[in-house]
Parts: sequence; structure tokens; C-alpha cells
Amino acid sequence: MADLPGRIRINEEGPREGFQFEKGPIATARKIALIDALSHTGLRQIQVVSFVPPQNVPGMADADDVVAGIRVNPEVAYTALWLNEKGLQRALGHDRLTIVGSIGLTCSEPFLLRNQKRTLQQNIDAQRSLLDMYRANGVAVRRGGLMAAFGCNFAGDIPPARVVDMVGQLLDLAREAGESLDFVSLADTMAWATPLSIRRVVGAVRERFPGLKLSLHLHDTRGMGIANACAGLEMGVDTFDAAVAGLGGCPFAAHKGAAGNVCTEDLVFLCDEMGVETGIDLSALMDAALLAEEVVGHPLPGSVKSGGSLKALRERIAAAH
Amino acid sequence: MADLPGRIRINEEGPREGFQFEKGPIATARKIALIDALSHTGLRQIQVVSFVPPQNVPGMADADDVVAGIRVNPEVAYTALWLNEKGLQRALGHDRLTIVGSIGLTCSEPFLLRNQKRTLQQNIDAQRSLLDMYRANGVAVRRGGLMAAFGCNFAGDIPPARVVDMVGQLLDLAREAGESLDFVSLADTMAWATPLSIRRVVGAVRERFPGLKLSLHLHDTRGMGIANACAGLEMGVDTFDAAVAGLGGCPFAAHKGAAGNVCTEDLVFLCDEMGVETGIDLSALMDAALLAEEVVGHPLPGSVKSGGSLKALRERIAAAH
Repeated sequence: MADLPGRIRINEEGPREGFQFEKGPIATARKIALIDALSHTGLRQIQVVSFVPPQNVPGMADADDVVAGIRVNPEVAYTALWLNEKGLQRALGHDRLTIVGSIGLTCSEPFLLRNQKRTLQQNIDAQRSLLDMYRANGVAVRRGGLMAAFGCNFAGDIPPARVVDMVGQLLDLAREAGESLDFVSLADTMAWATPLSIRRVVGAVRERFPGLKLSLHLHDTRGMGIANACAGLEMGVDTFDAAVAGLGGCPFAAHKGAAGNVCTEDLVFLCDEMGVETGIDLSALMDAALLAEEVVGHPLPGSVKSGGSLKALRERIAAAH
Repeated sequence: MADLPGRIRINEEGPREGFQFEKGPIATARKIALIDALSHTGLRQIQVVSFVPPQNVPGMADADDVVAGIRVNPEVAYTALWLNEKGLQRALGHDRLTIVGSIGLTCSEPFLLRNQKRTLQQNIDAQRSLLDMYRANGVAVRRGGLMAAFGCNFAGDIPPARVVDMVGQLLDLAREAGESLDFVSLADTMAWATPLSIRRVVGAVRERFPGLKLSLHLHDTRGMGIANACAGLEMGVDTFDAAVAGLGGCPFAAHKGAAGNVCTEDLVFLCDEMGVETGIDLSALMDAALLAEEVVGHPLPGSVKSGGSLKALRERIAAAH
């Protein structure tokens, strides 16, 4: 495990994933309480809301109030999601948000056609429009996202060579707009990845684009989330999306068993125990995970919040001696 | 991932783990139904009951009836657990059981003292008595087990060198009794293992005892079960205990969040997708996992039973073309 990074960065997506996915309704104050708790765990980036039409995502109807209500920790970058100019404008209305321009492609045309009613080419055109929109608003584009990078419920397996090609298309799109991506996020949108495919895809992309920073967005639908994150760590990946307590799910996968993102506190536990620094206080994060369960009103899938950390046990053992 | 074994063997422990751990009561016929379903999945070894005093483990009061009621698949070895001569005699009363003599040590004396009221030395003496008992009953001793091989809630971290030493003690015990162990099972009894410690411990044991076959018994309390199994696979380990749907838990760990064994169908999914043969029909196993939930009357932790296999999706995609 020689390639383990010394330190990773976790982008917490639990609030946005959870409030979007959960039937709720969840009181605005409770959403804010969860975000505030997460803000004091050592997490440095928290995606808090998406600015989308409330008729599409009722749980985001109070997105502006949620953002306005956060007790801001200046060490945390609070981010948001949007799908169009209107959403971006709402985000730009909040000084407290960190605005990161992002473009995204999808490896599967059947998935695109089904969920966004776009062909691959139409989606490329849509990203060009997004780049225009960012330029018009003075927003730098720093992030590229690639959905269905490990497989698709409608297209099946995705060959690593296709992922490499799509990453190239993302980089080209940015370049032609005079932008330079800080990193590309490879998303296992429908939970097809295994440690083997993580290694193959990350390896293939890295071979073609050695200097490119990669991030992984993993889902846990088939229980592979932590094993896949571990495979990413072993490939030297140092940025991960995760969701506290495993909040969320993929409402677009036409799949009722679809589980949320890989669980933040389980990932932090893995890192703590393998000597990879996260800067996060696992104990505070476990408290936030238990709060997340209270806020949504039902059990959530993460394990360490109920299984307990080893640090606490080690301290108890040391105290007894 | 060059060291992945071509084929692994899974020892299904779900029935024994589950019926022992679940509050129940579960009707005998339902227990038998689950075992019969598991018998037709391709599993070749199923641990079905433990012969222990019913006042200690009420869920095993009907162990003899369960064994007598199984619709035997001749390709399956049905095994049982016992702790003393009385239990062994009950097991020997059933022709349909495969009787495997086993001795076991524990890496942690505080755990031993707490749960078996024995020192390390007293436990070694107890294993000598077991070996005598097996010899008196004409039972060959083929399995060595090592509990708390990756850490202990009462002793803390266990150094790999200690595990190596304890494996040596197991082999010596067998040798002095004229027995030869087929394999040693390393048990992560209290879920302290991570992929890193799996590699370190398996690597250290293998370096000292290159010809010794190892098996892993993993718990999922902290969500590391599949990642740990994957680390074992990558070290070439080819025998795993697992429990359908993640049945079970460790009632001796003084730990209410303790989860069951690594989930069989999630492990089979991992193997299927990484090209490691198990001989198991994942679809039939997922049906058995759903039956297990019905039998115990509450949700169980495995993911693939609700997340679905990729084989089914691939078939649907192929049929649509």
C-alpha cells in the first residue's frame, strides 16, 4: 500500500444529497443544525443545497433560507449545486457560498437521453453554454465531472478507454473556453464500480493524463463503497466526495435500492486506521452522523456511528492501565 | 491485483450465527427453510447450528430438530459448532453432519478472561483436553482458529508478531497430538481490522509459515468487511467465512453496535465482478438473503440483496438490443 496519500480532502455532500433525496419534510432549522454540526468537525468543504425548482425537488424549496441560516465557520467552504443560469444567480446572491464553476459529461448516452433528454453531442453543446454563462458571470470553471464512469444501468459496462476519451473531451471543452480544470471527478453514479474497475479506470486516466488531479464520487448501493474508496486511496487518489451517515441516493437511477454516497465517517475511520490524514475529528463527525439520523427521522446506513471508533476503545483501555 | 485467487471457497455461517444471535423465537421449520434455500445456491459448506446448552443460547434449543429436518443436498457439507464433549456427542449423533475437529486460541488474554474465565495458559490446556476428546472419538482435527487476531476491545491493538506466535502455538498443539491442521482461520472477532492490518497480519503469518493455508473470519461492525475481504483476496487468501444477508453479531463483545459477519452475497458480488470464481449462483443467494430477512422478521445489513446484481442489469440491457 505504498501509494497511500499522506492526506486526503473530503468534500461533504450529505446535506445536499440528503435534503434532496429524503421525503421529509425536514424543518429548515434542522437542516441548518446538521450543517452547523458538520462545520465543526474539521471538514473544509460542505455542499449544502442545490438551487433547483421546488416543484422538481421539494426538499430544496428552502435552499435560500438554509444558506442564510448557517452559522458560518470561516474555515469551511460552503458550496451549492445548480443546473442553469437561474440557479447560479440564486447561488451568487449568497456571499457566504464558495462558487465553483463546473462542467460535466456522462459516459452513457442512454442515461443522458433518459434523464436529461440529451444526446452526447447535445450535452457537449450544453456544457459550452454553461461555460459561456460562467464567463458572463465572472465565475472561474475549476471542476470537471464525469458521470457513469464505471458502468450504467442502461448502457452496461463502460470501457476504461471510453472514460479516458471523455476526460479528454472535458479538458478540451475547458481549454477551448480558456479555462483550466483543477480536477476531474469520476462518479460511480449507479454503483457499478469494484476495487478492480477503480484501479483500471483510475490507472488508464492517469496514464493518459499524468498531471491531472482526480476525485472519486462513490455510491454504496452494492456495499462496495469503502472497498472502492480504499482502492482509490491505494491508487493515490486524494479527494473524495462522501455523505455523512451515508445520506442520499440516486433518484435518477430508476432503482429503488440505490443507496447514498460512501459514508463520510466510515471513510474517515478507514483513513484514521491506515495512517491517512483527513483533518477531521471522527468523534465529532460521528455525533453529526447521529444527528443526521435524528434530522431525517430514520436509520441511515453508515456503520461506524453505531459500531464506534477504535480511538475511544484505545483510550478506555489505556485509562484502565 | 495480480495475487487474486482464481477461485475461493466460502464457508456459510449465517444460519448458526443468526439463530444464535437473533432474539426470535424463530420456528424450527423456518430455520430449516433458510438452510434448504442456501443448500441450492452452490455453497459447499454451511454451518447450521451450535450444540450448546439451551439456557445459554435459547435460539439453539431446537438444534437437533433443525439438523434432522434439513433436506440434505449431498454436495453440501453441513457443519456444526460445539464447545465441549456433550456438544460433540450431540453432533456425532447426526450422520448428515460433517464433523470437523477444531482447536482455537485467542490473541487477547483480557478477552479470554472476560468471556471464558481462562488465562492464555489455561486455554492452551483446554485445547489439549479438546484434542484428547477428539482422539477418543476418532475425530480428526483439521482446523485451527485464532480469535481477536486484528485487535481486541479489551486489549487494544494486536501486533502481527503476536499473531504469528499464536499461529505457531496452534500448529505446535496440533503437532504434539499427532494432528496436522488443514488451515488456520484468522478471526477479526471485534472488527478491528482494516485492509492495511489484513495485509500486515496475513503477510507476517505467511512469511513465517509459507505453506499454511489461511482463512479469514471478518465482522462488519465498522463497515470494513468487504474492503477487508478484498485485501485478503489480494493477498491470495482463498477461504472466507461469511453470513448470508450479514446475519449474526458478536454477543460476547460487550458492544451493542456489533454487526454480523461479512455478508455472503456482497462477497460473492465482489468476487463475480473481479473474476474470482465462487461456484455460487448470486441470484439464488440473493433470494436466500431476502428469505433470511423474512425468517428473522427485520431488515438485515447486506447491500446487494436490495441493490441488485449487475448480471441482471447486463441481461436486461442485452435483451433490449
